[in-house]
Amino acid sequence: MANRAVAGPEVERLIQLLAKLPGLGPRSARRAALHLIKKKDQLLVPLAQAMGVAVDRVTVCQTCGTVDTCDPCTICSDPRRDTATIVVVEDVSDLWALERAGALNCRYHVLGGTLSPLDGIGPDDLTIDKLIERVAAGDVSEIVLAVNATVEGQTTAHYITDRLRGMDVKVTRLAHGVPVGGELDYLDEGTLVQALKARTSF
Amino acid sequence: MANRAVAGPEVERLIQLLAKLPGLGPRSARRAALHLIKKKDQLLVPLAQAMGVAVDRVTVCQTCGTVDTCDPCTICSDPRRDTATIVVVEDVSDLWALERAGALNCRYHVLGGTLSPLDGIGPDDLTIDKLIERVAAGDVSEIVLAVNATVEGQTTAHYITDRLRGMDVKVTRLAHGVPVGGELDYLDEGTLVQALKARTSF
Repeated sequence: MANRAVAGPEVERLIQLLAKLPGLGPRSARRAALHLIKKKDQLLVPLAQAMGVAVDRVTVCQTCGTVDTCDPCTICSDPRRDTATIVVVEDVSDLWALERAGALNCRYHVLGGTLSPLDGIGPDDLTIDKLIERVAAGDVSEIVLAVNATVEGQTTAHYITDRLRGMDVKVTRLAHGVPVGGELDYLDEGTLVQALKARTSF
Repeated sequence: MANRAVAGPEVERLIQLLAKLPGLGPRSARRAALHLIKKKDQLLVPLAQAMGVAVDRVTVCQTCGTVDTCDPCTICSDPRRDTATIVVVEDVSDLWALERAGALNCRYHVLGGTLSPLDGIGPDDLTIDKLIERVAAGDVSEIVLAVNATVEGQTTAHYITDRLRGMDVKVTRLAHGVPVGGELDYLDEGTLVQALKARTSF
C-alpha cells in the first residue's frame, strides 16, 4: 500500500526525475514537484522552457572545456580577461567555484577529471593535449594548477608539469594552508605541516 | 567580481529557477544545473520533457481538489477505493503524506487551506461547499478531518463539523498522541496531556 500512486504516471515520473538531482531525495522531490505544479505559471513553465533551451543550446567550449551556450565560451571570448594566465581545473564545478571567489581575471582549462590508472583513466581521456597546444600556441606565461589536493589531483599536476617542461611557461599551484575561518583543532596534520612550512611574516 | 557570469545567460537563468525549488539554495542549484548539463541525455532531456508534460496535462480534480493528470483524479476514479469514507486535508501535500502511510483505502477532499480571518480567508475561499455537496449526494458515511493540529486547522475542523450537523454522516478526527519513535522529553505539554487522556490498555 505504501507506494500507491497518488497521481497519474506523469506526475510520478516528474517526481522520480527530480529525485535524481543532487541535494534532493525522494521526499524533497515530492515537495519540489508539488511546488512546481502549484506555481505552474511562475515556476514550472519558465523552468521547463529554461531546460528546453539548455537541451538545445548548451555545449562544451572547444578551447577550455567548460559548458556554456556559446563556443568559444563566455570566458574564452571575453576580451577583458588576461590571456597570459590559464588556471587548470579538474571539473567545471571547480571553475565555477574559482569564479565565485573572483580572485583572478584569467582563462581556464577544464581537464575533465584526473589521471587514475585504477579506473583506467589515462592522459588521453583528459584534455591535457589540448592544454599543451594552447601553451605551444604562445601568449601564455603562467599555468596555475588548481587541481584538488588529492592523490589523483597531485599525480595529474605532476604529469602536466612534466609535459610542460622545456616550454616557456611558469607553472604554479594553489597554496596549501589553513582555510579562512578554519579552526586548527579540526585540521589534519598534513595541512598544519604545510601551513607552518609556508608561514608568512605578520 | 564575485558575481561574474561563468556561462551564458541561459545557464544562469536555469540556475536561478532551480534555486526557487524548495530544498535547493543558490549553491545547490548550481550543482544541480551542472549535474543536469553533464547528464544531458539521461536526466536533462527527460526532465525537460516531464515538465513539459506536466505543464500541458496537470490539472485540479473537480471532485476532490487534488492535482493529477486526469479529472476525476486517479484516486477518485479508482473503483477499489472505499467511497464511504472521505478524508479532509488542507493541502495536496497532506493527501500525499497520508497516501504514503497507506493506512486507509479512502477518498479525499482537499480544502485548499484553512479558515484564517486575519489573512482574509473565509469559507468561500476553501472547497467546503463542494465537500457539503459530496456528502449531500449520499453514499458517504464518514468524514475524517485530517487537518493540521494548529489553531487555524482546528477552527476549520469546527466550522466543517457545524456545517455537517444534521447530515447523516459520522465526523471523526485524527488521534492526538505521542509520535511513533518520539521521546517524551521533547514533547510539548499539550501533546502529553492528550496522550494521557486518550491512553489505551496495554
